[in-house]
Amino acid sequence: MSQKVSSDNISPYELIYYGGVPGRGEHIRLALEEAGASYTDTATLPMGEGREAVTTALEKNPRSQNPPYYAPPLFRHGALTISQTSNILLYLGPKLRLAGGGEDDVYRVNALALTALDGLSNEVHDCHHPIAVELYYEEQKEESHRRSKEWVKNRLPKHLGYWEKVLTSSEGPWLLGESFTYADLVLFQASFSFLLLSVRDPFHAQVPSTSPFSNMFAFPKAMGQAKQSGKYDRVFQLWEAVKARPNIAAYLSSERRQKYDWGIYRYYPENDVVAD
Amino acid sequence: MSQKVSSDNISPYELIYYGGVPGRGEHIRLALEEAGASYTDTATLPMGEGREAVTTALEKNPRSQNPPYYAPPLFRHGALTISQTSNILLYLGPKLRLAGGGEDDVYRVNALALTALDGLSNEVHDCHHPIAVELYYEEQKEESHRRSKEWVKNRLPKHLGYWEKVLTSSEGPWLLGESFTYADLVLFQASFSFLLLSVRDPFHAQVPSTSPFSNMFAFPKAMGQAKQSGKYDRVFQLWEAVKARPNIAAYLSSERRQKYDWGIYRYYPENDVVAD
Repeated sequence: MSQKVSSDNISPYELIYYGGVPGRGEHIRLALEEAGASYTDTATLPMGEGREAVTTALEKNPRSQNPPYYAPPLFRHGALTISQTSNILLYLGPKLRLAGGGEDDVYRVNALALTALDGLSNEVHDCHHPIAVELYYEEQKEESHRRSKEWVKNRLPKHLGYWEKVLTSSEGPWLLGESFTYADLVLFQASFSFLLLSVRDPFHAQVPSTSPFSNMFAFPKAMGQAKQSGKYDRVFQLWEAVKARPNIAAYLSSERRQKYDWGIYRYYPENDVVAD
Repeated sequence: MSQKVSSDNISPYELIYYGGVPGRGEHIRLALEEAGASYTDTATLPMGEGREAVTTALEKNPRSQNPPYYAPPLFRHGALTISQTSNILLYLGPKLRLAGGGEDDVYRVNALALTALDGLSNEVHDCHHPIAVELYYEEQKEESHRRSKEWVKNRLPKHLGYWEKVLTSSEGPWLLGESFTYADLVLFQASFSFLLLSVRDPFHAQVPSTSPFSNMFAFPKAMGQAKQSGKYDRVFQLWEAVKARPNIAAYLSSERRQKYDWGIYRYYPENDVVAD
């Protein structure tokens, strides 16, 4: 870019997000962990302090050039504070060497990350809140069930088919081919949130079964059906390959990984349907 | 950014999008028009040719480094093809001098643009398709009505309040203060799509009243109520100020401006409600 941009390599990386769920902050944690970068994370603070840190960071600091922001995750690096998951990844990508090495790859990676967030995070969230985020699930349960059935039938295969096509085209193992990028991490984390219950493997033994929330993920039956179909093998292979990367594996089994709870992805048995 | 990025100033700018609605492509057109840049636009082709151009561009060209993409708008500049509205604006912003002049402003502008697209474009689209984009409006009319009522009651004031706060904080006239950026254009276009019916002024006379679709915009009553309230004066002032910029005014009254139709924003009288 022709803009003057920061070359700040001294200030700490500060993730500002609520604790209690992996949420959208998780995409940023995975990039930082993969790169072995050190960072602070307000999700590790006691709940009240963490919430206050988010609220304060959303407002404009009168001496800064940063506008007030709408919602977390937020990321602070020196004088810069920014919001929006994909934007934070865009900022960090080149610094963490996770944005490809080719000319203009930053824009290809950003496009892929935005598409994964749209399709496999935002659309899935709206399956349990199709009418309004301000209403409880129980107040939109019928609509949620209807949306979930339609989503599993039409959208899930469409999205998985798209990612399979990208991986076929790149000849893998990663979305850009041989270059591992944060778009792979975003796709992994978005699919992870579907997979945990449907694909049994040793890693899952590490999820504490004592947690009351260890099984709260979206659409495990449909995702199991998708895996069985053999149509999306490259997507499932990418998922396995990301999970096996040493820094990711170490992080996932650490205390730093937030436990799943009533967040973007939720497990409602009545919505756990398969396509006819 | 530390990445190698294109300094291609010779290749033409090519917008690849369906004709028939302004849609998400409109955000890109407005940036190009504001800067006086020349570009090609597949929306100007006969409908069949335009659709074919989009379908072809979504697929990977075997000789290129670009992955296949999920959906338009697409943008081609030399060897680079990218998707995602905010990503295309990110790419063009510095080239068109519409991304701020301060260190790291590109990331502040991208955050603001993403937030406007989330809140005032995607959320509004889902008001007429809360269950599934694959179903007709008529098949989800009840859910659409319920979502619209909730959206007008809770989300519209929340979003307008946020943008008023940004403009108060920046001391205007623009979101970053004195520096006009493409985030202002995104906010303008998103609000425009609510406003056309509710705010009468000479410009609207230029919308051909013979078009059967000249009144298809979302929530004009609620937007009229918001304007009357006086709570969001800075947002409405920004809208007027963008509309009055010479290149934008010339564009809006030109044939290049796509007419509104059954797109992101739709006017269903039964959904045109006000908050109690």
